[in-house]
Amino acid sequence: MAGKTVSKFLKVKSSDEVLALIDRLHPLPAVEVELAAACGEVLALSVVAPESVPHFSRATMDGYAVRARDTFGASETLPAFLETAGEIKMGETVTRRLEPGTAIGVPTGGMLPEGADAVVMVEYTYPLDDKTIEVTRPVAPGDNLLREGEDISVGRELFPGGWRLRPQDVGVLAALGVTRVAVRRRPRVAVISTGDEVVPVGASPVPPGKIRDINSFTLAAQVEEAGGVIGLRKVIADDLALLTDVCRQALEDHDVIMLSGGSSVGVRDYTLSILEHLHDSELLAHGVAVRPGKPTILARVGEKVFWGLPGQPVSAMMICRAFVLPSLERLQGRTSKHAAFAVNQLNAVLARKVPSVHGRTDYVPVLLSSAHGRLSAEPVFGKSAMISTLAAADGYIIVPEHVEGLDQGTDVLVCLFSGPGKAG
Amino acid sequence: MAGKTVSKFLKVKSSDEVLALIDRLHPLPAVEVELAAACGEVLALSVVAPESVPHFSRATMDGYAVRARDTFGASETLPAFLETAGEIKMGETVTRRLEPGTAIGVPTGGMLPEGADAVVMVEYTYPLDDKTIEVTRPVAPGDNLLREGEDISVGRELFPGGWRLRPQDVGVLAALGVTRVAVRRRPRVAVISTGDEVVPVGASPVPPGKIRDINSFTLAAQVEEAGGVIGLRKVIADDLALLTDVCRQALEDHDVIMLSGGSSVGVRDYTLSILEHLHDSELLAHGVAVRPGKPTILARVGEKVFWGLPGQPVSAMMICRAFVLPSLERLQGRTSKHAAFAVNQLNAVLARKVPSVHGRTDYVPVLLSSAHGRLSAEPVFGKSAMISTLAAADGYIIVPEHVEGLDQGTDVLVCLFSGPGKAG
Repeated sequence: MAGKTVSKFLKVKSSDEVLALIDRLHPLPAVEVELAAACGEVLALSVVAPESVPHFSRATMDGYAVRARDTFGASETLPAFLETAGEIKMGETVTRRLEPGTAIGVPTGGMLPEGADAVVMVEYTYPLDDKTIEVTRPVAPGDNLLREGEDISVGRELFPGGWRLRPQDVGVLAALGVTRVAVRRRPRVAVISTGDEVVPVGASPVPPGKIRDINSFTLAAQVEEAGGVIGLRKVIADDLALLTDVCRQALEDHDVIMLSGGSSVGVRDYTLSILEHLHDSELLAHGVAVRPGKPTILARVGEKVFWGLPGQPVSAMMICRAFVLPSLERLQGRTSKHAAFAVNQLNAVLARKVPSVHGRTDYVPVLLSSAHGRLSAEPVFGKSAMISTLAAADGYIIVPEHVEGLDQGTDVLVCLFSGPGKAG
Repeated sequence: MAGKTVSKFLKVKSSDEVLALIDRLHPLPAVEVELAAACGEVLALSVVAPESVPHFSRATMDGYAVRARDTFGASETLPAFLETAGEIKMGETVTRRLEPGTAIGVPTGGMLPEGADAVVMVEYTYPLDDKTIEVTRPVAPGDNLLREGEDISVGRELFPGGWRLRPQDVGVLAALGVTRVAVRRRPRVAVISTGDEVVPVGASPVPPGKIRDINSFTLAAQVEEAGGVIGLRKVIADDLALLTDVCRQALEDHDVIMLSGGSSVGVRDYTLSILEHLHDSELLAHGVAVRPGKPTILARVGEKVFWGLPGQPVSAMMICRAFVLPSLERLQGRTSKHAAFAVNQLNAVLARKVPSVHGRTDYVPVLLSSAHGRLSAEPVFGKSAMISTLAAADGYIIVPEHVEGLDQGTDVLVCLFSGPGKAG
C-alpha cells in the first residue's frame, strides 16, 4: 500500500468550494505552436506588440495624398487647384516627397509620401487636365489615413497570459509577424467507465441485466470539444485490483483521470479505496452539495487530477460540464476572469415553473427551442434513468441553493453540455 | 480558354438571395466513422432505434421488487408484511419469478424478476427478521422502474439526416449499440490570400508599402472551427496567370475555394477573369447588398464552390461568417431548419446607438462584456482599416435593410466570428 490513508470523513463541499479548489490547480507546462495551429490554444504568456502597425503611413481611401492646408476653404463653387505629381502603386515603397501645392494619386492601403498629412477621397476631386485636379472639399490633417503606429503601437500588451486565441486574435498576431506562440499544453485525459452492469458498446446482444457503456462516449466527447486530449477511453469491470491497476497506469501519461461509476452502490467506496492505493493522493472533495451528482469525488494524485463521477449518464454529463471542464480550463491556465462570455452557455426564458427545495443546488436538464425570436428553455422532467433524456436535453439550468424554485418566464442561463460547433 | 464566358452584368444579390443560393448546394458524399469519432459530425441519414431501451425491466431505485397489489393500503401504522426471497445483484441475469406475497431486493439499474410490477424504495421498508420486511407505503404498478422499451422503443426515429451529433447524442447511440455512423464528409477548403501589398507572415522586416497576410490565417481558423478541413493556405501575388493556375490546381482536391483580394482595385476583376478561365464555371452572385463586403463573389465551378472575399480583414471575417460558413454547413447536409439555436450567436443588449442608412444591410462589429448578469454589445467604431479592430471585436450585429439605426438598449443577436470553444 503506497499511498497515505485517505480521510473518508471529509465534509461535503459546496459547488463554489469545489470551483475554488479547481482555481488552485497548477497550469500545465508551455509548448510552442505554429501560428496556423494556434487558434483555440491558450496563451502561456502575455503577448506584447513586437512592432508598430502600420509601420508606414497608409491611405484608408482611394484618392490623392495632399497637404491638408492646400485644401482649406475648398468647396464646389470655389475648388482648390492642385498640380498632380503621378501615382503611387499598391505595395510600392515610396521615396519621393509631396511638394506643396501638389497631389499624388494613392490607392486604399497605399503608402503615403513624406510631406502628405491627409488623403482627399477621389469622389471629391475632378481632373481638369493631365496635370491638374480640382478639390471640392477640404480635409483636415489625419483624414483618410493611418499614421505609423496609430493602429497598434510597439510594446502594447495585446493579450494576457491565459487568453484563448480566437480567429481574430490569430489575425492580429499575423499582422505583427508573430509566427510561433507559447501556449499551454492541452490536458491529456483518461476516461474510465465502470459498473458491474456495464458492457462495452460493441456487445450485441446485451445479456439481460446488463447495459451498454454510455459515459465513456459522452464524457470523452465533452472533453474533446473543450480542448482536452483523450488518451484512454475504456470500460473496466467493477473490480478493485483491476481498477487500481488501470488508474495507476493511466496516471503515468495522463493529467486527468475521470472514473465514472456504475449505478451500483459499491463503486463509490471503490473510488476511495483506489485513491488509498495510489501514491501521494489527497482527497479534496468527497461529495458536492448539488443534485444530481452529490457523490462526486475530487482528488489530487501527485500533480494529477482525479475525478470520481456518478454513473447515471445525464448526471455524469452535468458534473463533467460543471466541474471537470472548468478543471481542464484551469490546467490550460485559464481562470473565470478571462472570458466576458462563454459560447457554451446561452440566455433563455424558462418555459415552465421549476420546483426546487431551499438549501440545495439543483441542476435541471432543459431543451432549447426558438420562439418569437427568443430562446425558450423547457425543463425535461420524467424518470431520470431514461437515456432518452440525454438527447432531449441541450444542457441544464442551475437553481441556486437559496432559491425555492423558478417561475415560468424567468431569465435563465443554460449551460450546454458541450462548448463548440453548432449544436443540434 | 476552357470556360464559357462569365456574365459580368449579374445583378447584386441581397443577403437572403445569397443564402437561398447556398441552400441549393449539393451535400458532399457520406462516409462511415467510428462512434468515438462521431461527435461534431453531421448525420447523412436519419437514425432509427435498432432495439428497445431498456431491453429488460429495470429498477430505478434501490429497494425491493414487489407486486404492487401486495402493498395496497400499507402505512406506518399498518405496514404490509412481505416474505423476502433473496437479492438480485447488479448486472445479474434474473430467471426466477417473484411469487405473490414476497419481495426480492434489487439495486438501482438491476433487472426485475418476472411477476414484479413495482419497486418499493428501501427507505419505506424495515427488516423484521431474516425472512420478512415491513412495507410502510403503498406503490402503484410501474413505480420506481422502467419497463422494457419505456425509454426508447425499437423503430423510433432518433435523429434526422443533417443533424450534427452532440456528446449527448453519441451517448444515445452508444446505449443502442450503434458503433459506426454514416456522416457527411467534411468539406476541404483552400484559402488563398492575394494583393500586391500582401507578403507572407514570415517576412521580416516588411518593406515599407507592404503588409503581412492576415486573411489566410483568420479565414482558415474560422473554417477549421466550423468543421472544415484546410487543404491549402497560401499567399499568392496579384498575378492573373498564377492565380488562375493555383485555383485550377486547388479545385482538383478541394470542395471550396476562398480567394480573398487585397485592397487593390484590380483584384475584383481578376476574380471574374479567373472564373472565365475555369472549366464549367457559373457566376451566381456578383456583389451582395451588405456593408461592408459588397464586392463578395459567389460562383460554382463544376460541383465546387468558389468564394471571392473582400481583402479588408474585418470585412472578410464578417462575410466568411455570414456566407462561407453557412455554405460549409450546407455541404454537410445542414439547412437552417436543423438548429433551434447556434452557439456562435449570443443575445446581448446594445450599449450604444448605432446609426444606419435605410436601404442597406449593415454589419457592425461589436465587443461583448458582461454587465449586471447580462451581455452588453459595444459597437466598435473607429477607422475600419485598423487591424486592432479585429481583436477588439467579438463578432458583429446586423442592422437590417429597412431599419434606420438601432437605439441603445435594443436586444441584439451577436454573430461571433467563430463557433466553437470558449471565446476570449
